[in-house]
Amino acid sequence: MSEFHYNPHISVDCVIFGFDDEKINILLIKRKQEGENVYALPGDLVQKGEDLDVAATRVLYELTGMENLYLEQFKTFGSPDRTSDPVDVEWIKSVREHPEARVITVAYNSLVKTEDFDYRPSSFAEEVLWHPIEKPQKLGFDHNEIANTGWAMLREKIKREPIIAFSLLPEKFTLRQLQTLYEAIVGQELDKRNFRKRMLRNRFLVPMNEKETGVSHKPAQFYRFDDAIYKEEFAKDQWFLF
Amino acid sequence: MSEFHYNPHISVDCVIFGFDDEKINILLIKRKQEGENVYALPGDLVQKGEDLDVAATRVLYELTGMENLYLEQFKTFGSPDRTSDPVDVEWIKSVREHPEARVITVAYNSLVKTEDFDYRPSSFAEEVLWHPIEKPQKLGFDHNEIANTGWAMLREKIKREPIIAFSLLPEKFTLRQLQTLYEAIVGQELDKRNFRKRMLRNRFLVPMNEKETGVSHKPAQFYRFDDAIYKEEFAKDQWFLF
Repeated sequence: MSEFHYNPHISVDCVIFGFDDEKINILLIKRKQEGENVYALPGDLVQKGEDLDVAATRVLYELTGMENLYLEQFKTFGSPDRTSDPVDVEWIKSVREHPEARVITVAYNSLVKTEDFDYRPSSFAEEVLWHPIEKPQKLGFDHNEIANTGWAMLREKIKREPIIAFSLLPEKFTLRQLQTLYEAIVGQELDKRNFRKRMLRNRFLVPMNEKETGVSHKPAQFYRFDDAIYKEEFAKDQWFLF
Repeated sequence: MSEFHYNPHISVDCVIFGFDDEKINILLIKRKQEGENVYALPGDLVQKGEDLDVAATRVLYELTGMENLYLEQFKTFGSPDRTSDPVDVEWIKSVREHPEARVITVAYNSLVKTEDFDYRPSSFAEEVLWHPIEKPQKLGFDHNEIANTGWAMLREKIKREPIIAFSLLPEKFTLRQLQTLYEAIVGQELDKRNFRKRMLRNRFLVPMNEKETGVSHKPAQFYRFDDAIYKEEFAKDQWFLF
């Protein structure tokens, strides 16, 4: 990391959420640090002359091997004391030429199916893992705040653009699968009857002439998500939602 | 502007929109520059150790005298060539100690009633003005991109949170005033009959026992915005808008 290549003042951090058919997880790295186990978001300094979006894609790939995700910038964090924890300071000193530089970080998020992506640790990531978001985990720097903000903003987006949720399901799915997904996003159990009633109002949720097979319970109906109907009803520039 | 006080790599820019009862305007400054008239957003470098939100408030005040606005961070712009226009380069050289430093800028937006705020130019702002957004105006740096993005993101927010629009109206208002406001935000004329029909569906729009007086046309009914009903219907954490 020579001064020539990196801007010591600007970093990117990636908040990647993954749905594993049961729950939402967050992608963490364990960084290489003598005597300490510190988990953090995949993030690093931006190169000189590098565009921010390009930096986010590069840093995620360099640390975790993950690529071809859609990363969206959601917020920049620049509190002056965001890197002042002694454990973090010690680590920064071991890897950076200007450990004293104030770093503001531009945060990106993404929501994917865990099974669609391979990952492997590299660079200063000793380990890469999917950690369930319902289990609190202390992270380095201000990464807990960044991760929580990223999740809150992504949830807001899913409310307005339910297509984001549906993209996490297989092509044909049961209402039970849909409810499991929404419960993972909402973070609580939902009443089955109300959930189904509200969901089935949506014309973009289309019943198929097909049921589950080889299950021990009563086979459930499959549904599919109709992209064209969704676009017709939602994606138009609608000024009066209310 | 000594090196000791300013971080040469991080700036803030403020995109302030103002409704003047007829149209939406954007707040611009004309900067002091020999032989050139360059309009720009109010923005400047962040001080060392200064929080980003604090910096946005300070910079806006220092350049324009405006204060007590709610500023919301909406996006960070970090394209490596964002300050490469020769006219901008010349200006940067005249006011900054590290004119070559790459600056990323954290952008904030706000929407206010123009009449609620006083402004006066100071610091390197030679002039401060409200410029109508429907009239394109070339701005310095990448400020056209920042302004357009800020307006697009604010409009999206108003769709989801109509309270933002209603806050720009007087306490009692006519449907004509409401339509003028929405036409200014949407950027086009709206069909009067449809507009009224859709708006009057909203229980938070409450008719008053009061009409206009002293007007030459048929006096129109006054309405008020009911905050409590709005909160009951909108502000709850609603997961299924659809």
